Amino acid sequence: MRVKHKKWAEPLMEAHPEKMVLNGETVKGHWQGRFEKSQPIQLEVGMGKGQFIIGMAKAHPEINFIGLEIESTVAAIALKKALPEELPNLQLIRANGAGLETFFEDHSIDRIYLNFSDPWPKTRHEKRRLTYKSFLANYERVLKPNGKIELKTDNQGFFEYSLTSFNNYGLIFDGVWLDLHHSDENEGNVETEYEQKFSELGQPIYKVTAHIPDRE
Amino acid sequence: MRVKHKKWAEPLMEAHPEKMVLNGETVKGHWQGRFEKSQPIQLEVGMGKGQFIIGMAKAHPEINFIGLEIESTVAAIALKKALPEELPNLQLIRANGAGLETFFEDHSIDRIYLNFSDPWPKTRHEKRRLTYKSFLANYERVLKPNGKIELKTDNQGFFEYSLTSFNNYGLIFDGVWLDLHHSDENEGNVETEYEQKFSELGQPIYKVTAHIPDRE
Repeated sequence: MRVKHKKWAEPLMEAHPEKMVLNGETVKGHWQGRFEKSQPIQLEVGMGKGQFIIGMAKAHPEINFIGLEIESTVAAIALKKALPEELPNLQLIRANGAGLETFFEDHSIDRIYLNFSDPWPKTRHEKRRLTYKSFLANYERVLKPNGKIELKTDNQGFFEYSLTSFNNYGLIFDGVWLDLHHSDENEGNVETEYEQKFSELGQPIYKVTAHIPDRE
Repeated sequence: MRVKHKKWAEPLMEAHPEKMVLNGETVKGHWQGRFEKSQPIQLEVGMGKGQFIIGMAKAHPEINFIGLEIESTVAAIALKKALPEELPNLQLIRANGAGLETFFEDHSIDRIYLNFSDPWPKTRHEKRRLTYKSFLANYERVLKPNGKIELKTDNQGFFEYSLTSFNNYGLIFDGVWLDLHHSDENEGNVETEYEQKFSELGQPIYKVTAHIPDRE
């Protein structure tokens, strides 16, 4: 997600080291200490403006949430929204999703969310897609055994690609939904900004949940 | 597919043993001898009235096709359509898809097609779906190593189920299409009766192609 540069973005993030991590390397192995309670950790890669991860943190106090975003201004907008909520189970990090293993210990995350990721539709940009096999290998590394990946998107081509990529990598599907908002799975669904906008236009929202297999 | 019983159905099938197999057990191991040339075999499980398998046989003389259908009257309708075409690379069989291994030798089929199969939407009928794991095991048994399965449907719930079932069984996806008729994959697509009818109504047609993995 790209937005217009905001002058206040960097200063706001620097003023809130208790909520926003700017140098992921320094917190590797110390994430649980940044939350009020030690409990399972779920991570959104590409949180955008944060509506989903903030909503999840509100709805599930028994889980610790981390929202990761690469774009500084976008991450700062999420921080601005998160601060007044005072959620002790929410942390944010501005970082590149390609480097997860430098911010998170191996097998330390219970679940990863990918919501409305950039589809990078051109074949020559395949490696940038967050469901390309190199990203999946990073997710497997930081996820616990049998850790879950949940993906939502409104982009047909990206969903077709992601189903194939998940399958070819060896992820085991728990469920596939081709019209999430008109399914049982929608109960308890927390919407992202994008999701709200696109589903109001009547577009179907796609979802797949999968888990890491036992590798022997 | 259920249709009204036709009195001419059984007599027509019995009059054409050169084209229609009524006792599958008797031809096991002798399929290639029933075709003009010995060449790769592709099988449609649930051919319905035969439009797809006849169209494929016309389009691909370099492949031997077998259309299988459980319902006698439906199989007879397909036979009636197939006879005037005089296709030396097409054979039909009236049989239950659950018993493939009794009609076909192990690892003798190159590809299986599942087109617009009965979705059996109720959970208690899951075992009747042609993509239930016991059917997939039968397909693996009669398919050659790396043999392919191609599925088309307009039924959203059945497609969601089949993607998950294929994946959980260990099939490797070659491609997924959520709107076949508006994709590159549609080139050379041979339509079934159902497909023609439903796509004319603007309904998306779903497709997945997958292959049997190397098991070691």
